[in-house]
Amino acid sequence: MTPKTNAGRFFEDYCVGEVINHAVPRTVGGGERALYHALYPARAALYSSDEFARACGLAASPLDDLIAFHVVFGKTVPDISLNAIANLGYGEGRWLAPLWPGDTLRAWSEVIGVKQNSNGQSGVVWVRTTGVNQRGKAVLSYVRWVMVRRRSPGIAPQTVVPALADVVAAWDLVVPEGLDFSNYDFALAGEPHRLGDYTVGEVIDHIDGVTVEEAEHMLATRLWQNTARVHFDVTARDGGRLIYGGHVISMARALSFNGLANAQMIVALNGGTHANPCIAGDTVRAWSQVLDMAETPAPGVGAIRLRTVAVKGDGTGLKGADGRYLPHVLLDMDYWALIPV
Amino acid sequence: MTPKTNAGRFFEDYCVGEVINHAVPRTVGGGERALYHALYPARAALYSSDEFARACGLAASPLDDLIAFHVVFGKTVPDISLNAIANLGYGEGRWLAPLWPGDTLRAWSEVIGVKQNSNGQSGVVWVRTTGVNQRGKAVLSYVRWVMVRRRSPGIAPQTVVPALADVVAAWDLVVPEGLDFSNYDFALAGEPHRLGDYTVGEVIDHIDGVTVEEAEHMLATRLWQNTARVHFDVTARDGGRLIYGGHVISMARALSFNGLANAQMIVALNGGTHANPCIAGDTVRAWSQVLDMAETPAPGVGAIRLRTVAVKGDGTGLKGADGRYLPHVLLDMDYWALIPV
Amino acid sequence: MTPKTNAGRFFEDYCVGEVINHAVPRTVGGGERALYHALYPARAALYSSDEFARACGLAASPLDDLIAFHVVFGKTVPDISLNAIANLGYGEGRWLAPLWPGDTLRAWSEVIGVKQNSNGQSGVVWVRTTGVNQRGKAVLSYVRWVMVRRRSPGIAPQTVVPALADVVAAWDLVVPEGLDFSNYDFALAGEPHRLGDYTVGEVIDHIDGVTVEEAEHMLATRLWQNTARVHFDVTARDGGRLIYGGHVISMARALSFNGLANAQMIVALNGGTHANPCIAGDTVRAWSQVLDMAETPAPGVGAIRLRTVAVKGDGTGLKGADGRYLPHVLLDMDYWALIPV
Repeated sequence: MTPKTNAGRFFEDYCVGEVINHAVPRTVGGGERALYHALYPARAALYSSDEFARACGLAASPLDDLIAFHVVFGKTVPDISLNAIANLGYGEGRWLAPLWPGDTLRAWSEVIGVKQNSNGQSGVVWVRTTGVNQRGKAVLSYVRWVMVRRRSPGIAPQTVVPALADVVAAWDLVVPEGLDFSNYDFALAGEPHRLGDYTVGEVIDHIDGVTVEEAEHMLATRLWQNTARVHFDVTARDGGRLIYGGHVISMARALSFNGLANAQMIVALNGGTHANPCIAGDTVRAWSQVLDMAETPAPGVGAIRLRTVAVKGDGTGLKGADGRYLPHVLLDMDYWALIPV
Repeated sequence: MTPKTNAGRFFEDYCVGEVINHAVPRTVGGGERALYHALYPARAALYSSDEFARACGLAASPLDDLIAFHVVFGKTVPDISLNAIANLGYGEGRWLAPLWPGDTLRAWSEVIGVKQNSNGQSGVVWVRTTGVNQRGKAVLSYVRWVMVRRRSPGIAPQTVVPALADVVAAWDLVVPEGLDFSNYDFALAGEPHRLGDYTVGEVIDHIDGVTVEEAEHMLATRLWQNTARVHFDVTARDGGRLIYGGHVISMARALSFNGLANAQMIVALNGGTHANPCIAGDTVRAWSQVLDMAETPAPGVGAIRLRTVAVKGDGTGLKGADGRYLPHVLLDMDYWALIPV
Repeated sequence: MTPKTNAGRFFEDYCVGEVINHAVPRTVGGGERALYHALYPARAALYSSDEFARACGLAASPLDDLIAFHVVFGKTVPDISLNAIANLGYGEGRWLAPLWPGDTLRAWSEVIGVKQNSNGQSGVVWVRTTGVNQRGKAVLSYVRWVMVRRRSPGIAPQTVVPALADVVAAWDLVVPEGLDFSNYDFALAGEPHRLGDYTVGEVIDHIDGVTVEEAEHMLATRLWQNTARVHFDVTARDGGRLIYGGHVISMARALSFNGLANAQMIVALNGGTHANPCIAGDTVRAWSQVLDMAETPAPGVGAIRLRTVAVKGDGTGLKGADGRYLPHVLLDMDYWALIPV
C-alpha cells in the first residue's frame, strides 16, 4: 500500500495567508437542476421556469443558488474538512453572479484564521472560499470555519481570529444584472406576499415536513462531489451515516417556499450553524423569522433578511437555558433573499 | 405565526365556472427525461431515441407523455387537492401536443362541478385542467374529480355534476403533427406486434415487477412539484407515506412495454381509478386488456384503447362480488395509445 | 394471456455466427451525466468539466466511459441474459470513440461461441457486442459470456469456444482524437501522480466506502434500461434483489479516484468477473493493483493497466487455497486507462 491517496490536511498544515486551489472543476446544467428539484421540494418560480425568469429580466432561469453553494463546498471538502471534527459555522457569504446551465465552477480557499484548541489535539481553521465560473467571474464567496484534528501534538501556531461581520450589509448585496421585479407575477409565483407584507420579527411556520432517506442524501451529496466518508459509509461512524449539513440547508430552504415563495434569490449567507446531526429517518420541518428588510437599486427588488431554522421531530423552542441549541434543532441559518417590494 | 402559508382550498371555496390559475410554471428538459428513465422502466423507443423519433417524422424525441401529465397535475395540487380526502377519478384526458425539451408548462383548472356529500362535511369537486406551453399551445387537458373537506359545515351549493364521456372518441384523438409510422422499425422498437396483431378483449400479462422504495417515489413526486404532505412526511398519515397515484400510473405504463412496446404515445386518458393505496415495499405488476382499436388520419398510425391495471402482491381478479376493487388492485386506467397499423 | 411478451432466449436459441440487433436505441445527455455523478462518487476532471476537457484537446467533456458500457449492456439484456444463470465474464473490451451528450447509441451482438454444460440443462454463450452512435461510428466493443438455461433438454450443438486475448494489446488501444495531456493540470485534476509515479505491482487501497441502497441501484439499473427482474422485484430471488454487476463496476471505478485520479479514460476492459453477489446494505470498498504500463502515440498520454477489486465488509485477500474468490470479493476487473506520462 502506497501513499497515493489523499489523507486530508491536519490542523498544523494550515497557514494563514495560504491559498488552496481546489481540484475537479465542474460543469453543471439541466441535469443538476432536475436532480435538485427531485431531491428538494424546490418551487421558486424564478428557478423553475425560463419564462418566469425572462419576465424578471434574466436571460433564462439560473440554477438554484444553493447548487452553486454545494458545488463550491464540495470542491473544498478534500482540502478543508476531510479531517474535520466539526463544521462550526459560515459567515460573510455573498452570491456574486447567477449560475447558468453550462457554467463550469472551480474554487479556491484562503486560510484567514487558525486557533489551536487548549487540548493541543485540534484547532479551528477559518477559510474564505471563492467559486468562479469559466469566465473567471466570481459566483460565490463565503467564510467557513471548521475544527480540525492535529496529525500529532505540537506547538500552537500564532492565533489569528478573523474579524467577521455579523451580517452582510444591505449595500453589499449583489443584485443580478438585469433583475427587475416591476412586473412580477405573484399569481404565477404562488403567493401574494411582497416585502411590505412582512414585518420584522414575524415568524412563519412552513408547515410541510419531509422524512429523509439514506438514498436521497447520498445522491445529493455525491452530486456535489462531496467525499466525506461519514455521509456514505455506514461503518464510518457510530450511529450510522451522517447527513451532509448542506442537505438540511437545501431542504429547509425548499420547505420555506410555503410562506416565502417570493423570497426568490439568496444573495447573502450571514451565518449558519449545524446545531445537531441529521440522520435518515428524521422528519425535517422548518420555520423562519424575518430579521430585517432593505431596498436595492434594482427596479421592484427588495431584500429580506431571514433566519430559517430546520428542526426534526416534535420539539419546540430553539435554545435551552444554557444557551445551547435544543436537541431537535438541526440548522439555524441567517441569510438575505431578494423579494419584490 | 402568521397566515402566510397556503392552507389549501376547502369544498366551499369552489364555485362552478371559476378558473384557477396554478402557480409555478416549469421548464423541463433532458434532466427530467433522464430522471424519468431512472425512476420507471420506460423503454418506448420514440421517447428513448432522437433518431427513432426522427424516423417517425418528429423533430426529436419528445418527453414522455406522462411527464406532461405529472407536471400539470403537480401544479394543481396546492389549489385542488391539498385538502382532498380522495382522488376519485380522471376522464376526458387528451394530449394535444408533444412536450419538447426546453418547453415551459403552466396550467389552469376550471371548476366544472360540485356536489356536497350528505354528511355535510365534504363534497366532490370536478375540475377541467389545461396545461399549456410557452407558446400558449395546449399540451394536455383532462378532468379530475376529488373529494374535498369542508372548512366548516354549511349549506350545500347547487349540485352540478358534469356530463363526462366514458371514452374519448377516436376522431377526437390528436396525432402529433408529422407523425408517420409507415417505415416504423419494429426490430429497433423491441417487439413485432402491430395493431392488427392484437384483438379486442385480449389480455396481456406484463410479467415484470418492481418493488418500490420510499426514496424513489419521493424523488418522482418532488420532481413534479407535487406538494401533498402525505407523500413525504411519515407522520402525516397512519400507515406511513402514501405513494402518489401518478407514480403507480407511470410504473404500470412503463411495465406495459413488455407486450405493448409499440403502443408508443398516450393520446387520451378515458378514465382512471386509484383503487387502493400503494406504499413502499409493495411490488407493483401490471396487466392490460385491449378494449378497442381505431384508425387515424396519419400514415401508418393506428390507435389502441387499453385498460392497464396495476396490482401489488399475488392477488388475482379485479373486483369482488360487491363490485368493489379487490385489495391488491392499485390502479385501473383506460387510455388510447398510438401504435403502427 | 397471449404470447406478446418477451420470454427471452434459451441456450438452444443461440447459433454461432448469428447477429442479434438489440432494441430501443438511446439518446443520452447531460441528464444521464448528472445522474451518473449522483449515483457514483465519480470525480475524474475530464468527465466533470468542459473546461478541463478542452484543455486536454477534446471538444467538451464526454460522458463517462462506463455510461457507454452500461447503455450498451442494457440493450443486450432482453436478448442475451434474460434467462442467464450467471454472467461469467468479459474480455476484449475496447472503447473506440467518446460518447458525447446528444449521441444516440444502438447495439448488436454476434454469437461467437456456445458450449453446452454436461448436465444438458444449460450452456455457455459467448457474444461480441458492438455499440454504435448515430453516425454509425463504433463507440464500444466487448465480449461477454453467460450461462443460459435450455428451454428443454436436447442434443448439444457443436462446441465453439472463441480464442480470446487475455489482454488488449497496448497498440490496439484507441486514444480519442485530439487528446493531449501535454499541459495537463494536475492540481485541478486532484492528484499529482503521473504514470511514472506508479510501479508495476503497486497496490493502492482506495480507502473510501459506500453502503449501497435499494433505491440507488434500481435507479442506476433502470437508467441503463436493463430489464432483468432480479434487480427490481424482491420476490424474484431468494435473498432479495441482486444488484446489477455493472453498478459495482461503476462504484469501484469511482472509488478508485482516490489514488488514481489521473487514470482518466477507460480504453479497454481486459477482463472482469463478478465474484460474489452484491445486495443492498453491503458497504463497497475497492483496491487496485498496477499490472502494466504503456506509451501511446498521443502527446503526453500514457496507458496504465489496472486490476481493480471491489470488496464488501471487512474480509481481506482475494482467493482461497482452492483458487476461488473469497466471499467478500465482489468484482475483479482488469482494464487499461489513459493517464498523463
